[in-house]
Amino acid sequence: MENAKSLIAKEAVKLIDDGMVVGLGSGSTAGLFIMELGKRIQEEELTVFGVPTSFEARMLALQYGVPLVSLDEYDVDIAIDGADEVEKDTLYLIKGGGGCHTQEKIVDYSAKEFVVIVDESKIVNKLGEKYPIPVEVVPFAYSVVIKELINMGGNPTIRLGERKRGPVITDNGNMVIDVSMDVDDAEKLEKELNNIPGVVENGIFTKVDKVLVGTAKGVKTLKKKKK
Amino acid sequence: MENAKSLIAKEAVKLIDDGMVVGLGSGSTAGLFIMELGKRIQEEELTVFGVPTSFEARMLALQYGVPLVSLDEYDVDIAIDGADEVEKDTLYLIKGGGGCHTQEKIVDYSAKEFVVIVDESKIVNKLGEKYPIPVEVVPFAYSVVIKELINMGGNPTIRLGERKRGPVITDNGNMVIDVSMDVDDAEKLEKELNNIPGVVENGIFTKVDKVLVGTAKGVKTLKKKKK
Repeated sequence: MENAKSLIAKEAVKLIDDGMVVGLGSGSTAGLFIMELGKRIQEEELTVFGVPTSFEARMLALQYGVPLVSLDEYDVDIAIDGADEVEKDTLYLIKGGGGCHTQEKIVDYSAKEFVVIVDESKIVNKLGEKYPIPVEVVPFAYSVVIKELINMGGNPTIRLGERKRGPVITDNGNMVIDVSMDVDDAEKLEKELNNIPGVVENGIFTKVDKVLVGTAKGVKTLKKKKK
Repeated sequence: MENAKSLIAKEAVKLIDDGMVVGLGSGSTAGLFIMELGKRIQEEELTVFGVPTSFEARMLALQYGVPLVSLDEYDVDIAIDGADEVEKDTLYLIKGGGGCHTQEKIVDYSAKEFVVIVDESKIVNKLGEKYPIPVEVVPFAYSVVIKELINMGGNPTIRLGERKRGPVITDNGNMVIDVSMDVDDAEKLEKELNNIPGVVENGIFTKVDKVLVGTAKGVKTLKKKKK
């Protein structure tokens, strides 16, 4: 697994050209990509800037020497990000296991190209198979959002912090509700969840350009087969 | 105008029964309602609780003796709130001139009944005639949201604070972008705006049960004539 993650990070970094602004994803595979990008910037003296999708990505960029810029300074040419689940035929994703999906979606969806890098354990036949959908909510609204998610047929739980004494708080100061539910129409559900008052953003991603999958044997590219 | 606002507040407070949990709106007319509700609670010794839609509503409830509860303790029986614009035939609203539309929508949409109280200057033939649409955004996303609003044909401006030195910050720690744009299908636009990554909530309200309009001559009730 670690070998596959490392392979895929090395492959993804080849997509970066001198002069690009790169969205820096969150999670372990994206973290390895940031490390590889830092190496290339140093070794090849590239002029490349990163836009971090989380505090975690920011820290790794600082550590590995990827200079950072903001969304109000530059447009993002390419975003490289991981995922918790990738639906095989549609390339729809679930993201947000780390609670960063709002900033990830802001950066990833704004990019001219959005490339997902995962190891093959993340590929599923049907979205929602293994993971619940993370929903970031304004704390004031958590109880009414939970009721609405139950009305929609979901099974919501509040994500708790490590010591289980209180809720996880996101980089934006909000809470995360994880909801297990059938995903029959991902594009519709992505919109419906965002339309619940108090919901900031949900972890269904339906606008993906390309998925690179790392296996022990090498890297393959997944293409969209159907909507 | 002040007389009309006072009349409408006195009329609206008649809708409250003993034992009710009441959503307390924001703005000048809703503020008069909170004052009238406090009077009734004291004079008639009612057991009525309020759920404030803003810091402003909270302060007025404290001042006028309306005991407060939270959304995670009680469901809201009736919400009484103002509006910046009411479209005559559809009862669609624009709210958020005070920057409180996110908490307002959380409370108002969760209520069993949502009643809007306005003076007649707020009634328009077509939504968006006088007011831009307030859009609350995560600060990290403001520049990409502005670009997307321009792509959608809108004319967005960042709402600045009183001294114009920085952005208005909402009760939720976010910014407000006011966007002027044609509202052809309010229900669709409400969803589309919420689906832009980084948008928390917008000021189009399409789920309204009743609108009470205060005029110098008395109060009339507006009913929905079309979708």
